[in-house]
Amino acid sequence: MGTARVVFDRWSDRYSKRMADVRSSAVRDLFAAATRPDMISFSGGMPEIRRVPIDSVIAAATSALRDSGTEALQYGSSEGRPQVREVVVGLMGEIGVRVKADDLVITAGAQQALDLVAKIFIDPGDTIICEGPTYLGALQAFSAYQPNVVCIPMDDDGMRTDLLAEELKRLGQRGAKFIYTIPNFQNPAGVTLTPTRRRELLDLAREYDIPVIEDDPYGRLRFEGGHCLPLRALDDEVIYLGTFSKIFAPGLRLGWVAAPKPILAKFLLAKQAADLCGSSYAQVTAERYFADTRWRKTLQTLTSAYAERRDAMIAALEEFFPAEAHWTVPAGGFFVWVEMPSFLDLKSILAEAVERGVTYVPGDAFFPDGRGRNCMRLGFCYAEPAKIREGIERLAEVLEDRLELYRAFAAAGVLPAAPGTTDERG
Amino acid sequence: MGTARVVFDRWSDRYSKRMADVRSSAVRDLFAAATRPDMISFSGGMPEIRRVPIDSVIAAATSALRDSGTEALQYGSSEGRPQVREVVVGLMGEIGVRVKADDLVITAGAQQALDLVAKIFIDPGDTIICEGPTYLGALQAFSAYQPNVVCIPMDDDGMRTDLLAEELKRLGQRGAKFIYTIPNFQNPAGVTLTPTRRRELLDLAREYDIPVIEDDPYGRLRFEGGHCLPLRALDDEVIYLGTFSKIFAPGLRLGWVAAPKPILAKFLLAKQAADLCGSSYAQVTAERYFADTRWRKTLQTLTSAYAERRDAMIAALEEFFPAEAHWTVPAGGFFVWVEMPSFLDLKSILAEAVERGVTYVPGDAFFPDGRGRNCMRLGFCYAEPAKIREGIERLAEVLEDRLELYRAFAAAGVLPAAPGTTDERG
Repeated sequence: MGTARVVFDRWSDRYSKRMADVRSSAVRDLFAAATRPDMISFSGGMPEIRRVPIDSVIAAATSALRDSGTEALQYGSSEGRPQVREVVVGLMGEIGVRVKADDLVITAGAQQALDLVAKIFIDPGDTIICEGPTYLGALQAFSAYQPNVVCIPMDDDGMRTDLLAEELKRLGQRGAKFIYTIPNFQNPAGVTLTPTRRRELLDLAREYDIPVIEDDPYGRLRFEGGHCLPLRALDDEVIYLGTFSKIFAPGLRLGWVAAPKPILAKFLLAKQAADLCGSSYAQVTAERYFADTRWRKTLQTLTSAYAERRDAMIAALEEFFPAEAHWTVPAGGFFVWVEMPSFLDLKSILAEAVERGVTYVPGDAFFPDGRGRNCMRLGFCYAEPAKIREGIERLAEVLEDRLELYRAFAAAGVLPAAPGTTDERG
Repeated sequence: MGTARVVFDRWSDRYSKRMADVRSSAVRDLFAAATRPDMISFSGGMPEIRRVPIDSVIAAATSALRDSGTEALQYGSSEGRPQVREVVVGLMGEIGVRVKADDLVITAGAQQALDLVAKIFIDPGDTIICEGPTYLGALQAFSAYQPNVVCIPMDDDGMRTDLLAEELKRLGQRGAKFIYTIPNFQNPAGVTLTPTRRRELLDLAREYDIPVIEDDPYGRLRFEGGHCLPLRALDDEVIYLGTFSKIFAPGLRLGWVAAPKPILAKFLLAKQAADLCGSSYAQVTAERYFADTRWRKTLQTLTSAYAERRDAMIAALEEFFPAEAHWTVPAGGFFVWVEMPSFLDLKSILAEAVERGVTYVPGDAFFPDGRGRNCMRLGFCYAEPAKIREGIERLAEVLEDRLELYRAFAAAGVLPAAPGTTDERG
């Protein structure tokens, strides 16, 4: 895999303390090296943007520049353009959430909203509550503000609200700065919080007086089953993060936050300090794109493609994966979460998988504390079904090789050490 | 001017400590209210984007989407597209700075670079050094990381390096996290750091081993005199911040940072946490825009327009402003800095100016500590020359009214109190 170039850093004693907590993605270099043309990637969370008709984007861009060129090129308001916020009002209405334009601030994707919400709430040492595993980008954003991250386990019904209740009891009234959850087709676990648990989570949050942050990038990418009302539809104090990345395109870097007005005012100050305002150019384009109804058909096409790929991945897992593996079956979104026996270290196996032409993200990337190394996230969003099957077959071979070794050890009465007992982290 | 709506904030005890230091722009509400059609604004720093031919932008957007549509809509690398970084390499070369594409990270305007550079360097209580006055957006970005801000006064030759030397001596070796400077046509002061002082500043920074951040949004908007080599051309450890906002359009939110590789690596981590990556959509457009040579003519047209407006403003100041006023004469950029006698409080006068149909930014916005209330920043970038004359005439009337009052007091032997002695800050 080659070695990362080490650069002597004469400023190493000058950086802020928070930077010690901002984790480099250890697998990033690996993937950068993994540019073989036959590489099958399950590591990314990239939408299948090739199915977005480029003509509809060109038409949106051209007419927006023709009609609103001066606005498109100029600084805009920090809240975002009223017109694009009206688009969001419509989108939110369709999923059962009533908001007004002035309940919203447009952000540079949902990632910026994660950064800013952490910035306005977290002091070093503050406790925050997440699902375990949780979105890697959220951990990156939060870690810069030095919180103590408590992870609540999930099952097939999403976050275990019984365990959340225990944790909140332990932490006490206002014992955490916020609860962060991805209720729909969770990244990375693929599970969805049931309507009953949504209610329970909100009741607990109210009881302990803790703000809830609902991150909902995948909510509209549902393959089967009925729509679950967002937490924000059930409680208007919920801070809701949305994004255009999965219903239009991530390349525009447009997302939004809906929050109670006082929180939104703080958020807006943080936004101004971070980048003054969002891109008017991207906003006028999105306005036009959603003014035409073709986006609905495109979103349907995309969702069907993802459903087909989910099916391909689940079928391949059943066909090829060893009996020791367990995985989730997501009803939407991008990701399947695989759990292997605790002694298997999927981080150390990754290099071998890359050799064989397949990538995934080892599970520890989704925990703040090194847990999850016997797990992996498989993204089915980007590869074609035939490639998915091939990739899962390759990956199964890697796992089988390793399992055989362990089975031989076990048969000889020598139990292998569980991963994480020695420190191999780079 | 009406009253700001006060919203009860039940989360007021929940925000991070840093948010107490992120200042709301007190004049922001005032300007929001100032939407009279005949209002003449000297408060903004908005480029004259109406002179950018929209056809050249439409052509760039269309051909970029046609040729690189999939890339334009997808997530990109956190460093920014290699192609747009090559454009920056070319632009930097033209101002005398040799960089390679991998010395650069593309940012969401220079404002994001300010935020991220503060994030990677500043721990609460750390000292940083700026010019006084300095860019309001930089103070906003830095303040979120709770630094101790030391301001070095300027004269017509830019930052007083003799006073910088004194301050550094007091602070000692590595006594500050960085020195932040805007050497060309400083915002808000309008002055330019002379070549001799550039050398002195760099020597001092080397002697005390303190990184220098050079913010250069206006460098190419020079009206007269020769080009001054950027600090980064004289010392390749300087962290240089550039932006497309003034040479193309702020609506795309594209800027860049050039820095030594170890610092750039930290910066990149902070960038990933902040927004994953920049907008590919904006980047492909900028690439195409700069691939055509028409941008040079457009930039010339813009610079000529700004020069004409600078002339109009200086002429009007000479014609209408009271003898007590002093102002800088910038050789480029967007801003004139006016200093009035110390007893005149230009913050309290602003509401009256708005009544008369003219706006400016009171000087205290550009200091971290309430200083500068007898000063104001006048932006000549956005209004037409005839409007500039009219606006300065209106403003002079407001000042004259107030000065007459003070002159009467003084004649009666009653000296008015200097501003800042009572706390009127909202």
